Amino acid sequence: MAETKPEISFIGLGAMGFGMATNLVKRGYKVTGFDVWKPTLERFQAAGGNIATTPVEAVRGKDYCVCMVATAQQAQAVLIDGENPALPALPKGAALLLCSTVPCAYVQGLGRQLSELGRGDIRLIDSPVSGGAARAADGTLSIMAGGSDDAFEKGRFLLQEMSDPNKLYIVNGGVGAGSNMKMCHQVLAANHILAASEGLGFATHLGLDPHLASREVLKSDAWAWMLENRLPRMLDPEFKPVASALTIILKDTSIITSEARRSGFPTPMSSTAEQVFFSGLGRGYGPDDDSSLIRLYTEGKGKVGPVKGFAETDEAKLKLVKALFKGIYLCSAAETIAFADRCNLDLDQVFELCTSAAGGSTIFQVVGPDIIRLRRGQPLPTDDGEGFKEIAQQLQEAVEEAQRLKAPVYLGSQALTLTQLATQSASDATGPVSRATIAKLWGL
Amino acid sequence: MAETKPEISFIGLGAMGFGMATNLVKRGYKVTGFDVWKPTLERFQAAGGNIATTPVEAVRGKDYCVCMVATAQQAQAVLIDGENPALPALPKGAALLLCSTVPCAYVQGLGRQLSELGRGDIRLIDSPVSGGAARAADGTLSIMAGGSDDAFEKGRFLLQEMSDPNKLYIVNGGVGAGSNMKMCHQVLAANHILAASEGLGFATHLGLDPHLASREVLKSDAWAWMLENRLPRMLDPEFKPVASALTIILKDTSIITSEARRSGFPTPMSSTAEQVFFSGLGRGYGPDDDSSLIRLYTEGKGKVGPVKGFAETDEAKLKLVKALFKGIYLCSAAETIAFADRCNLDLDQVFELCTSAAGGSTIFQVVGPDIIRLRRGQPLPTDDGEGFKEIAQQLQEAVEEAQRLKAPVYLGSQALTLTQLATQSASDATGPVSRATIAKLWGL
Repeated sequence: MAETKPEISFIGLGAMGFGMATNLVKRGYKVTGFDVWKPTLERFQAAGGNIATTPVEAVRGKDYCVCMVATAQQAQAVLIDGENPALPALPKGAALLLCSTVPCAYVQGLGRQLSELGRGDIRLIDSPVSGGAARAADGTLSIMAGGSDDAFEKGRFLLQEMSDPNKLYIVNGGVGAGSNMKMCHQVLAANHILAASEGLGFATHLGLDPHLASREVLKSDAWAWMLENRLPRMLDPEFKPVASALTIILKDTSIITSEARRSGFPTPMSSTAEQVFFSGLGRGYGPDDDSSLIRLYTEGKGKVGPVKGFAETDEAKLKLVKALFKGIYLCSAAETIAFADRCNLDLDQVFELCTSAAGGSTIFQVVGPDIIRLRRGQPLPTDDGEGFKEIAQQLQEAVEEAQRLKAPVYLGSQALTLTQLATQSASDATGPVSRATIAKLWGL
Repeated sequence: MAETKPEISFIGLGAMGFGMATNLVKRGYKVTGFDVWKPTLERFQAAGGNIATTPVEAVRGKDYCVCMVATAQQAQAVLIDGENPALPALPKGAALLLCSTVPCAYVQGLGRQLSELGRGDIRLIDSPVSGGAARAADGTLSIMAGGSDDAFEKGRFLLQEMSDPNKLYIVNGGVGAGSNMKMCHQVLAANHILAASEGLGFATHLGLDPHLASREVLKSDAWAWMLENRLPRMLDPEFKPVASALTIILKDTSIITSEARRSGFPTPMSSTAEQVFFSGLGRGYGPDDDSSLIRLYTEGKGKVGPVKGFAETDEAKLKLVKALFKGIYLCSAAETIAFADRCNLDLDQVFELCTSAAGGSTIFQVVGPDIIRLRRGQPLPTDDGEGFKEIAQQLQEAVEEAQRLKAPVYLGSQALTLTQLATQSASDATGPVSRATIAKLWGL
């Protein structure tokens, strides 16, 4: 007879949590789920799970608890502060996997709270995830996990059940390091999600067919995972199905900017994205798929009076769209790596994770290693292909064309400003300039 | 018998031009007006003007021509390229006052065109104006004029008739210098116009009464001419009457950013404002008064789900609103002066003009001289009152509160990013830091 698999409690059965929990059910675990929303509990029961009507009831007697609620506030409520919280019923020495995306400061504070409440025995693993609902349901997520050796000894098998074998990242630095890693990855995610809308919005202002434009962009060095992933919903007239709501990436973006502010770290790209997300939220787009932000970029098309761009052929227009994407991706890459460095993360691990996760792009793949070399004071190779000046110049042409068309390009305009500021402070350079130069703006 | 006043032709009778032309009529000049829009011609006739139905007819036989069309394209059309253009009929040695806000490059190119067309005899004065329709009608505009001595000898009296005696600025540098001066002033104008909407929008998200908030702000060191001027329309339910359309300030902003790009000069504040203006244009707000941009900042209020700020008292909230304004004004001041320096303008004259024109603010008044000293390598006085760190810290608190309220603050967020970047590059400072420090970001 096969060894009996341990019982697991699972708190938070939203889009991600439901998939993660049912994946565990499929893999033979006895999973007891809790969620405040009753219909999802019924669905979970139908999928073979057990259900509980309070957090305390869910966790009682189970040596493993996965918490996948939406925010730090919700985690605090279900674990400690709310009605019938889980903590008192967690068995001694239980593993607690906090998979929600929360600020590093929160999960570190949670660790302290556990000690102060006399529950230092609980093995807390800070293990946010990435990859979307489909991969959650397959058990092939990316997971970034920080914790003690002791905690990993107990909980690692569970992280493995939920993640792709190549995408489980044990992040050095203990509790908090996983959240920091996720946060830095989300710098790419936030900017690339908005870039997808901005770039395709720009394409429509240029008069390009968005199907053609996106196909060509995805074949080029302006490829990014997010554009490829969001594209079908962006091209759907109703932006359906909702795979990831605007409110989700906005929450993650606010974690980035607020954590960065704590150490005076500038996030010009993420801060710009956050403002546009707030505008989208104000328009009522919060519950909609984040791909629907393209609406903010297309509504003026054809309605802003007579405009005429310079680009006439599809080829010239596509070049501008790609240039806009590449400029944004370059600046996002630098902001990501500089921020990860500020968070004392292992930059090689950051690079490996980001290239194989939702934040990936060809530009990040190419420029990331150079930025890391810059940080380490290692010599930079002469760029094969486009250097910094070429990317900046082509980005400028794209922003100029958008101006002629009276089309907003918030991220592109900000990226151009950053290339100008970086050029100014590196104005002694005469020969070819490495793309990694942009990272000097963040003090690398 | 009194000396007969010379005949004047006036091309472009829009909101500004109509007031300027009728002012000249009141002052006893025989003015022949032209405009493409017939109803305004009838109004001008009723106000005592003569009218012409083509540019060529308007200028024939008149030694003085004022051109006050909306754009460089329109100027080019009425003067040279369009139907029945003015140029062939301008008498030898006539004074041509181009009062439209156009790029420096355009008016300098116009000078070259005149020579190439064999009309180097025409005395071109590059003389954009500022001050709004009411001051246009009173003949008390601010005018920034560049031209040859010869041209001023002929045309100065006419500039004097249209301007306040203390607000006629003869700008060194010839044709183009007037436009550059106007452009640099518009850096303040563009940012302050949007700041008025952003700051008052933020106040409403905070739950402050906008009447109370604006009254308190205008009594404080967060005063600015633009807020005071736009306030009545901003508080009008229909944003009426239309005194200056969004399209006007957008046009001026696009001149700023495109001229700045030509020399790789970064305009992080103006570029941010321009993007928001494009969003407003896309919403159909182009013809509306620019004070109506507050709509972009208030639409989410009460609709973005449960939010709760930290500030509880009106006093605490007002402090945040003032901090937002002051941070924006500080960065706008630095961008203005640095850009003026790049344009080789006389910074003392820039300061004098801006403090007494529509771009004025208490912050500019206080910090402007320090930024100029910084540029000149002169020692900076220790700031009496708030230093750089205090302004940056309070701005950060405002941006954080806006984040809690999920309210967009595009300019405030950008200003915060700039204070962070400036702090980073001046991070060796330990004692009090001058507010002028922000200007180092632009290489001053």
